[in-house]
Amino acid sequence: MTDHILKSFDTELDRLYDEIKRMGELAMSQLDAAVDVLGRRDSNAAARVVANDDAIDAMESAVSMDVLKLLALRQPMARDLREVYAALRISADIERIGDYATNVAKRSIVLNNSPALPITGRIARLAKIANQLLADALKAYSEGDAELAARVRDADVELDAMYTSFFRELVTYMMEDPRTIGACAHLMFMAKNIERIGDHATNIAENTWFVVHGDMPEGERRKEDRTSE
Amino acid sequence: MTDHILKSFDTELDRLYDEIKRMGELAMSQLDAAVDVLGRRDSNAAARVVANDDAIDAMESAVSMDVLKLLALRQPMARDLREVYAALRISADIERIGDYATNVAKRSIVLNNSPALPITGRIARLAKIANQLLADALKAYSEGDAELAARVRDADVELDAMYTSFFRELVTYMMEDPRTIGACAHLMFMAKNIERIGDHATNIAENTWFVVHGDMPEGERRKEDRTSE
Repeated sequence: MTDHILKSFDTELDRLYDEIKRMGELAMSQLDAAVDVLGRRDSNAAARVVANDDAIDAMESAVSMDVLKLLALRQPMARDLREVYAALRISADIERIGDYATNVAKRSIVLNNSPALPITGRIARLAKIANQLLADALKAYSEGDAELAARVRDADVELDAMYTSFFRELVTYMMEDPRTIGACAHLMFMAKNIERIGDHATNIAENTWFVVHGDMPEGERRKEDRTSE
Repeated sequence: MTDHILKSFDTELDRLYDEIKRMGELAMSQLDAAVDVLGRRDSNAAARVVANDDAIDAMESAVSMDVLKLLALRQPMARDLREVYAALRISADIERIGDYATNVAKRSIVLNNSPALPITGRIARLAKIANQLLADALKAYSEGDAELAARVRDADVELDAMYTSFFRELVTYMMEDPRTIGACAHLMFMAKNIERIGDHATNIAENTWFVVHGDMPEGERRKEDRTSE
């Protein structure tokens, strides 16, 4: 038996929580940074945000392999099994959130090739809501707070509504000035990326609920934006 | 000990392969159906495609829980551990592919509220390439064919190029006839969904390589579309 095997399950689990907490903090700072470089039109800084995504990807791979080894060596059941399942799922959600933040930064580099559009400022408002949802979801997870998790799930609806309204505004904007269509198409995808971050925050909240209660929260999830309805 | 525990690891693994095969076939037929209802402008059939997505979601949950129980009860190591890890990852990829196909169907319902655009036909061409990638990736996985998996990874570049060219064409199309902007925005998201299906087919191929060889394929993955570069 190795030292690894002799450690207690709780110690291993604490380590997973720590890894996921650091991943989450990195994803949040990536989204903040992406929106910041968009506002400042700083392509060099945007390229650094893109490069940072590798760190989140590496952390997710590490969590996945840790989870699998933990499962194989410890054979957890009941709540312990839910804990490792949730860790695996939540790390995958954070990895996706990192990808979405990175895509915002990438698209900001393209936008720097055309004149600044005042409507770009709306992206920062969407991102602020998304990052708050993510902060709450991660807090609910790290504290095992199922009630906070349930509130995150409900609050995602606001982000969806804000995205839908921005989508329609962008269509109008493009019609009024067709020269902005290329740039506005990128803003549309950026907004969609941020709306998706809200969905992944909701996933984190649902998996937190699952850890605590052993089932999924009741009621139809109101997840999709309404632009495709 | 229950009957479940007494089954051999290989029997359990075969069952996982079967479940994933069925999930994959369903995802492929969902994408075909989504493109078909788009072409036929049939909102009722599109709504049925949307409803079918629940079946894929349920299959993914079942695979996840089977994988976790298998890990806990069997403590697989080395290639066996990679097998269950890949099954978990690949079922998550197929679930996402199902979501993207569903989103194409949802958006087709919105498009039926405005006049048909000839450029819509390009979506079917993109989807055909994506579905071929997916078919190859699933074949590579079920047959443990790492060479085929490596070819899928390379072929995704073609889909990305086709998406990028379509994106630019759509921007031009919108500029020439601003009344089509709303509809074209949905076509843009549909095309992006299909480009993402190619990325998930590539993930499946990479995890197939991982099962066989124990590492990830060499060389930088050329995954992103170039519209955000």
